[in-house]
Amino acid sequence: MRKLYLFIISIAFSISTFALNVDRVEPMFWWVGMKNPNLQLLIHGNNVSQYQVSIKYPGVKVNKVNKVENPNYLFIDLVIDSKSAKAGKFTIDLLQNGKTEGTYTYELKNRKPGSAIRQGFSSSDVVYLLMPDRFANGDPANDNVDSQPEKANRTIDYGRHGGDIKGITDHLDYIKQLGATAIWSTPLLENNFDKYTYHGYAISDFYQIDPRYGSNDDYARLVDAAHQKGLKIIMDMVSNHGGIGAWWMKDLPMADWIHQWPTFTRSNHKAITTKDIHAAQCDLKLDQEGWFDTTMPDMNQNNPYFWTYYIQNNIWWIEFAGLDGIRMDTYPYNDRDAMAKWAKAITNEYPKFNITGETWLHSSEDIAFWQKDAVNSLHYNSQLPTPMDFVMNDALAVCFNEQGNGWNEQGMSRLYNDISKDYLFANPNNLLIFAENHDTQRYNNTLKGDLAKYKMAMSFLMTTRGIPQIYYGTEIGMTGDKNKGDGDIRRDFPGGWAGDSINAFIPQARTSFQNSYYDFTAKLLNWRKNKEVIHSGKLIHYVPENDMYVYFRYNDKEKVMVVLNNNESAQTLKTDRFSEMMENYTSGKEVISGKTYTDLKNLDVPAKSAMIIELK
Amino acid sequence: MRKLYLFIISIAFSISTFALNVDRVEPMFWWVGMKNPNLQLLIHGNNVSQYQVSIKYPGVKVNKVNKVENPNYLFIDLVIDSKSAKAGKFTIDLLQNGKTEGTYTYELKNRKPGSAIRQGFSSSDVVYLLMPDRFANGDPANDNVDSQPEKANRTIDYGRHGGDIKGITDHLDYIKQLGATAIWSTPLLENNFDKYTYHGYAISDFYQIDPRYGSNDDYARLVDAAHQKGLKIIMDMVSNHGGIGAWWMKDLPMADWIHQWPTFTRSNHKAITTKDIHAAQCDLKLDQEGWFDTTMPDMNQNNPYFWTYYIQNNIWWIEFAGLDGIRMDTYPYNDRDAMAKWAKAITNEYPKFNITGETWLHSSEDIAFWQKDAVNSLHYNSQLPTPMDFVMNDALAVCFNEQGNGWNEQGMSRLYNDISKDYLFANPNNLLIFAENHDTQRYNNTLKGDLAKYKMAMSFLMTTRGIPQIYYGTEIGMTGDKNKGDGDIRRDFPGGWAGDSINAFIPQARTSFQNSYYDFTAKLLNWRKNKEVIHSGKLIHYVPENDMYVYFRYNDKEKVMVVLNNNESAQTLKTDRFSEMMENYTSGKEVISGKTYTDLKNLDVPAKSAMIIELK
Repeated sequence: MRKLYLFIISIAFSISTFALNVDRVEPMFWWVGMKNPNLQLLIHGNNVSQYQVSIKYPGVKVNKVNKVENPNYLFIDLVIDSKSAKAGKFTIDLLQNGKTEGTYTYELKNRKPGSAIRQGFSSSDVVYLLMPDRFANGDPANDNVDSQPEKANRTIDYGRHGGDIKGITDHLDYIKQLGATAIWSTPLLENNFDKYTYHGYAISDFYQIDPRYGSNDDYARLVDAAHQKGLKIIMDMVSNHGGIGAWWMKDLPMADWIHQWPTFTRSNHKAITTKDIHAAQCDLKLDQEGWFDTTMPDMNQNNPYFWTYYIQNNIWWIEFAGLDGIRMDTYPYNDRDAMAKWAKAITNEYPKFNITGETWLHSSEDIAFWQKDAVNSLHYNSQLPTPMDFVMNDALAVCFNEQGNGWNEQGMSRLYNDISKDYLFANPNNLLIFAENHDTQRYNNTLKGDLAKYKMAMSFLMTTRGIPQIYYGTEIGMTGDKNKGDGDIRRDFPGGWAGDSINAFIPQARTSFQNSYYDFTAKLLNWRKNKEVIHSGKLIHYVPENDMYVYFRYNDKEKVMVVLNNNESAQTLKTDRFSEMMENYTSGKEVISGKTYTDLKNLDVPAKSAMIIELK
Repeated sequence: MRKLYLFIISIAFSISTFALNVDRVEPMFWWVGMKNPNLQLLIHGNNVSQYQVSIKYPGVKVNKVNKVENPNYLFIDLVIDSKSAKAGKFTIDLLQNGKTEGTYTYELKNRKPGSAIRQGFSSSDVVYLLMPDRFANGDPANDNVDSQPEKANRTIDYGRHGGDIKGITDHLDYIKQLGATAIWSTPLLENNFDKYTYHGYAISDFYQIDPRYGSNDDYARLVDAAHQKGLKIIMDMVSNHGGIGAWWMKDLPMADWIHQWPTFTRSNHKAITTKDIHAAQCDLKLDQEGWFDTTMPDMNQNNPYFWTYYIQNNIWWIEFAGLDGIRMDTYPYNDRDAMAKWAKAITNEYPKFNITGETWLHSSEDIAFWQKDAVNSLHYNSQLPTPMDFVMNDALAVCFNEQGNGWNEQGMSRLYNDISKDYLFANPNNLLIFAENHDTQRYNNTLKGDLAKYKMAMSFLMTTRGIPQIYYGTEIGMTGDKNKGDGDIRRDFPGGWAGDSINAFIPQARTSFQNSYYDFTAKLLNWRKNKEVIHSGKLIHYVPENDMYVYFRYNDKEKVMVVLNNNESAQTLKTDRFSEMMENYTSGKEVISGKTYTDLKNLDVPAKSAMIIELK
């Protein structure tokens, strides 16, 4: 079954004989013209290690053939010469006693033009995060597939609901019209085990899109279609752990391919141990090597075979699918130095590529530590361009529900204080900023369905520094309560399934409530889309007073003033305090209302509202 | 009055003529053999700037005579040659048209042997913080003095109560027997204004002990007496602000000697603005130049005359009184670069001296930033050896009143998390650690008078890294509620005043309640006194489990295990988890109980208790 399946999905790799029972050669193909000339092929097959390897192809050299603990594996070190190797197919001959016992066709492809210099997502983008199983079911035919034990069942909140790649592809226009410019889908790779697979974070095959979402080629076509609409695609990756259903779990290359424990041992989730100069070794080991879950074997990033396999895999996806970014799961739980090597390998191949890491930590310095080129006492360089700003997330989770003045440091002070820690970051504009994601409370629940607060929060996210990320459905007022379980914050997008009573993808079909969220969001995001002053302008902010947070974004050409009035009362804002920013401006136009202000000395700001004013 | 007064207190400086009406030459005397050969004399007198200056003394050169805005000031730059200048007196002649109009005798003294290499306080010390007005009234004769408008009134909680230097001197044995090894008294310098002067932080004369505490010489004698008992003395200094009653406030040398505002303008107390790359200039200015209080003019550390005056003043006190340390007030509200210059000037003269700064900030990185040689993105080196660990203080303020397990990060996790941030510090052992001070809630109030919690907290403070500081009276169970005002947390020490109903300085006179606190504290502190393993040993700690925090201190010679059981129930601690620390030890002796444990595999730990076990 496995072998046949491999034939279906792998076009470039074909096995000409079954004598050896080789079922895996990975990466399935590669490219000429990569900056890194080295490629390590994993070959898996019954007793494959007893064979010699011969490759005769101009510019391709077998540097070493590595045998490991398990005789069913070979790791072949190739060097692909950047000048002499041309795209084409060649054979890998496996020999015994001088006699060829198997011949495999391997392909080196040409890279797409501009592949190496692709521009990753950046602060000019707004990222739309969706869960593919819950967004839209474009192809009901793949809801259930023979190879995967878990079948679709929309009545279970932790079951598979049938959403897929076609569902995303079908609604690219919706996302584009909303004004988002990049899509982060939670993992699409195969999760081959019996239940609770819809989240996708227990990957069983790093080289295969889960057939319930579509094929590898479907994914590549999604990326192409997105690019044609000006949308970028960010792939969600997991290096900390695999899935219990992984093919290699049945036949590990070596014992330390994963972190093994006498009995199931859960991580202590104490990421701080990786930096703590007083940490006990056993606590550090538990953090790094403990499992996240019984279904998630913890990968050993210090195993050089695994790590090369994994790095190549990620580069393979970038090159194959044409990715614009990677989102890496559970960042601080991986081995620190290995992660730096991984990020460096990727950004070495693609210098303008972007990677965001799930740095779910609660102090700015903890997050700053994980950013590329950070200055820190451990002299560690993560090479990760874009950590996630979970400290801002912490602030956003409470600040609009609070009043805060002076010493209590609540309300708007939380945003001010977060931003004021930017000196810690090597590049504060390269932070993913968000009010929610698929693991947090739904933001409309946090805000108790208050549209006014939503508008303030979005106005902030779309005008402060960083790369804003929003979460599918919030733009139409979707709610969901994390306290009821993850399923509740990952509900199906209305209209994603045939027969849904409301199709929120279509303006006319949306309720007025949904449109009140959507229309505001679309206006704001589409305004942001071409605002260089927001993408890269400087930021100057003021200590909040009377629950009002005021800041400016500016560059040589433009200046934007943002006022957040988090007070329960309307206020008149005297602007003389901001003279160092405003002295040369006489009028302004508020972005959402379109209203022009000719007197900038006193601004009447309604209760619980935001103003975004382009100064003239 | 002022002039006469100056004569009384200044032995070394005498005015031989009154023609010029010079009332100040500061520093009043100086020393030969200082590392820094420069000395800038401030001379204040009616129209003194119209005179020429002549000094003829071997090795002393007048480099420059500076006239400033106010004609009543001269600032004379002297260079004192380290080889040719000998101790002795010389005259400063003030001339007009070649005629000497006034002659002043100035003295250069010899330094005490070893002055430059004095060893400051360190992690081998325990600091006893007291408020001199509230500790003990050794000399009722100085409770009221003519020169100072505020008189003693023990019935007012913010009034002066009469405590003084003699009160401290009289009870050095009490402090020594308790096991503390250093005394930090809140400021003793003159606070010459009408009310609320007892706290001492509105200094009106940087060169004069407040006469209600005693004289400059009384202070020097206190230091001598303390040294003879093995106690160190830390002087509390204030550079951010002076007192509204300061002599120079009536006749400022120049307008920018202090930060002046059109009307009284309070600081926004946003110390973060000094590091914030997005800070508005007006917010930064308000933080740095706003006043703390109407009685506290904000000093301008960027005024080179003031700053030289201030730096020399601090060095003068170190040299004159023989200090072992300085505690500097409101550290981050001063100009950052000026403070680095100040600390560098002091540690340049006294390389082993120690300074602790009031870094009242709430994240570890904020505090780490202020420590000498910190690695930070602003490439700032504060030169301050010992910041105060207010993050630990925040943790101690709540942790023993909480249970905390797993993800909630409460209880013992707060201590663990604080310590685990030590990688941020250039020298985590050089942090002043404390459960309370004169500005915080009284710790026995925080703990609601629970002796068991007190024992846990003290056991932690006396065995973790850092320089522990305790607060007078807590060792006898004193309480006080900050919510009732500062006076309540600064109550008189019982027995410090003649006629007090209880004299807690004397064991036999203490209540059994008081002795239950004192005896535990004295046992713990006296044990710590000679424990090098605590002063400088390494620290390894373990992620708290079941409200138990376990850590080890060790060096080549000794190992100490500390167990804090913050759970409401007794627990048996299985120690196999700590094998990397315990494998070579077979027994242990608990420090407070004296009990010997021969089975270290399972430790029975009572509810809410600490064990400090010397492993054998």
